[in-house]
Amino acid sequence: MSNAPKANAVVSQSGGPTGVINASLVGVIEEAKKHPEIQNLYGAIHAVSGIVKEDFIDLMKISGDVLKTVAASPSSALGSSRDKPDAEYCKKILDVFKKRDIRYFFYIGGNDSANTCFIINKMAQEIGFDLRAFHVPKTIDNDLLVTDHCPGFGTAAKFVACAVMGDDLDNRALPGIKIDCIMGRHAGFLTAASALGKQRDDDGPHLVYLPERPVRMEQILSDVSAVYKKLGRCVIAVSEGISDTDHKTWAEKITETDERDSHGNVQLSGTGALADYLAAQIKGKLKVKRVRADTFGYLQRSFAGLQSSVDASEAHRCGIEAVKFAMANISGSVAIKRTGSGQNYGAELFRTELANVAEKTKSLSDEFINKDGNGITEAFVEYALPLTGGLPKTEYLGNKPKI
Amino acid sequence: MSNAPKANAVVSQSGGPTGVINASLVGVIEEAKKHPEIQNLYGAIHAVSGIVKEDFIDLMKISGDVLKTVAASPSSALGSSRDKPDAEYCKKILDVFKKRDIRYFFYIGGNDSANTCFIINKMAQEIGFDLRAFHVPKTIDNDLLVTDHCPGFGTAAKFVACAVMGDDLDNRALPGIKIDCIMGRHAGFLTAASALGKQRDDDGPHLVYLPERPVRMEQILSDVSAVYKKLGRCVIAVSEGISDTDHKTWAEKITETDERDSHGNVQLSGTGALADYLAAQIKGKLKVKRVRADTFGYLQRSFAGLQSSVDASEAHRCGIEAVKFAMANISGSVAIKRTGSGQNYGAELFRTELANVAEKTKSLSDEFINKDGNGITEAFVEYALPLTGGLPKTEYLGNKPKI
Repeated sequence: MSNAPKANAVVSQSGGPTGVINASLVGVIEEAKKHPEIQNLYGAIHAVSGIVKEDFIDLMKISGDVLKTVAASPSSALGSSRDKPDAEYCKKILDVFKKRDIRYFFYIGGNDSANTCFIINKMAQEIGFDLRAFHVPKTIDNDLLVTDHCPGFGTAAKFVACAVMGDDLDNRALPGIKIDCIMGRHAGFLTAASALGKQRDDDGPHLVYLPERPVRMEQILSDVSAVYKKLGRCVIAVSEGISDTDHKTWAEKITETDERDSHGNVQLSGTGALADYLAAQIKGKLKVKRVRADTFGYLQRSFAGLQSSVDASEAHRCGIEAVKFAMANISGSVAIKRTGSGQNYGAELFRTELANVAEKTKSLSDEFINKDGNGITEAFVEYALPLTGGLPKTEYLGNKPKI
Repeated sequence: MSNAPKANAVVSQSGGPTGVINASLVGVIEEAKKHPEIQNLYGAIHAVSGIVKEDFIDLMKISGDVLKTVAASPSSALGSSRDKPDAEYCKKILDVFKKRDIRYFFYIGGNDSANTCFIINKMAQEIGFDLRAFHVPKTIDNDLLVTDHCPGFGTAAKFVACAVMGDDLDNRALPGIKIDCIMGRHAGFLTAASALGKQRDDDGPHLVYLPERPVRMEQILSDVSAVYKKLGRCVIAVSEGISDTDHKTWAEKITETDERDSHGNVQLSGTGALADYLAAQIKGKLKVKRVRADTFGYLQRSFAGLQSSVDASEAHRCGIEAVKFAMANISGSVAIKRTGSGQNYGAELFRTELANVAEKTKSLSDEFINKDGNGITEAFVEYALPLTGGLPKTEYLGNKPKI
């Protein structure tokens, strides 16, 4: 137990927005108000870039009513940034912390953000500056280590599941082959979530292609052909990050642009190229007339009014817990432990070291992927369904007995 | 007042599915059960093609619980079809009606479906067959004549508005230029709905391009450049049906395939080509690094768990009213009259002649489009907002005063 200093705090949000990253922000604000150790609570606009520019707002002054709406709003209410601070950048951040007497740093983000916390925390220790750096997890990709799952995933999973449920019913109404391209560069959790709403034996998605299972085009065509022959239709969920068996992603193979973000990532989202390419391949080679493709795009992470209640509540708790942990520890990342399953699903929060989360990512484990590598298992449904807060039931009548 | 025959009835759903077309179906079923004139109520699977194939299910046997879920399910629970019956096709339909003693025909669809009802009704009269053919309106395009608005539009409008609200907040968090491509081949109602959730002066969409206002690429680039210079970002809503000033659609200009459906329409949906083309033009000519494009695709019309309460209720009432009208009239189309506005919004249903609705469409009226042809007016918000059943409020904090 260390003595929490009486000083200012800063909170910020980094990386891709989610549907509940603002619930974590509100958790931090509400809990910070309860601790006299925290004097001012600054909100840094556009993440670390807002810290170095001292682009701060006063979060203690935001009314409870506004905070309630903030918590329910998608995207990052403080703005975000793709900056990945190096040592020099982190030094500038520390300089601002010293100047403004900021000794609490709450950073809501993914593994890169955990790493920024880690670097700054280390630098602060080296110069003997009493800083408490806390990472609050968020990512729709659900790929952080240690934590059972990540705030932001459940809401995106709910969106993807509801989209594919509706799309599958649409495909029943007007049969054909339908490709749905879903976010997730390296981890297939969100693409796997496309299957969470399946209720009938012949419900789609009938095929699910994940970044964890490189696949040749011939295999995709053969899989699709088999489903189409059997059902007269086929709904396919494809991760934007799927790769060929030579481990080059399909997106890389077809993209002519080589735009990369500052983390060295190729742009996969915000274009329909991969889905359209797959549609053209299937249409040309399988000679099926009605082939359609949708790329879910940014709607998956920022859609107004569609939070998972479970996800929103956990994100909020993560923000609260980060502040509580900061009162007793000099650094850490908040993580979630699952307690119970199904109707008895619950979650406990705990603190883990920044180093355990920083820079690392995880993928869908083997138990979640079917033997053929083109679908998910019941174990994944058990894992992910509770995080959506429940999905709507649907009915289709075309299967009823004929008279 | 004509004497309603004691006979069987058939109901079916045609064209593109919507989020509430099943609510209309359930309205027909529930009301049909109350009229002893209607003996069996057949559901024809896949629209007119199900009628000629006698692909019928018994709708009187579906339990109330299942019907409740049907009404809340997106897409067409009886399946759909793009078949556009000619005289020979309609004769086959009449033959089945005679064979099965079907004298009530309820057809839920757009202007093509109204036309099918019109043709069959005329044929039945010519041969003295006592048939009652009723059209129940549905279309996300909102382009039917006579009716104030169409069931299906309000739910699609809610989806589009919530998507753009979230996307605009995402664009605030990570600024750049964002293009959202929205359904609507000839009528811009749904694209216009992208602006219904605007709350702050600088909220997006900042530009709205509609099929009703042909526009040159130079004009789009100039508009986008002006917004980007002012706000450092720009969210653009574009109809899939926008055309150049030579009246050729942009989609036609760029598409290499010439796939047309049986109505002679070029395929616009189910591909990201238009949005990607616009993104490439803007990126290349305006030299902006972060340009992204999403095509909302089929999610707009078939998304599970996202009905407009107003739309769902009106769709349900339209189904009920069609059966009531059929007890007193030989044919007709159900239409909606608005009573009151804003908080006092209400709707009354009335019967109109099939000929008034068949084959015709309407576009956004001039009063709904701004002077520059790149945005909508307050009059459109007043018209369309009540149909969404209300939209969520959001908050963004990045505009708060700096400290």
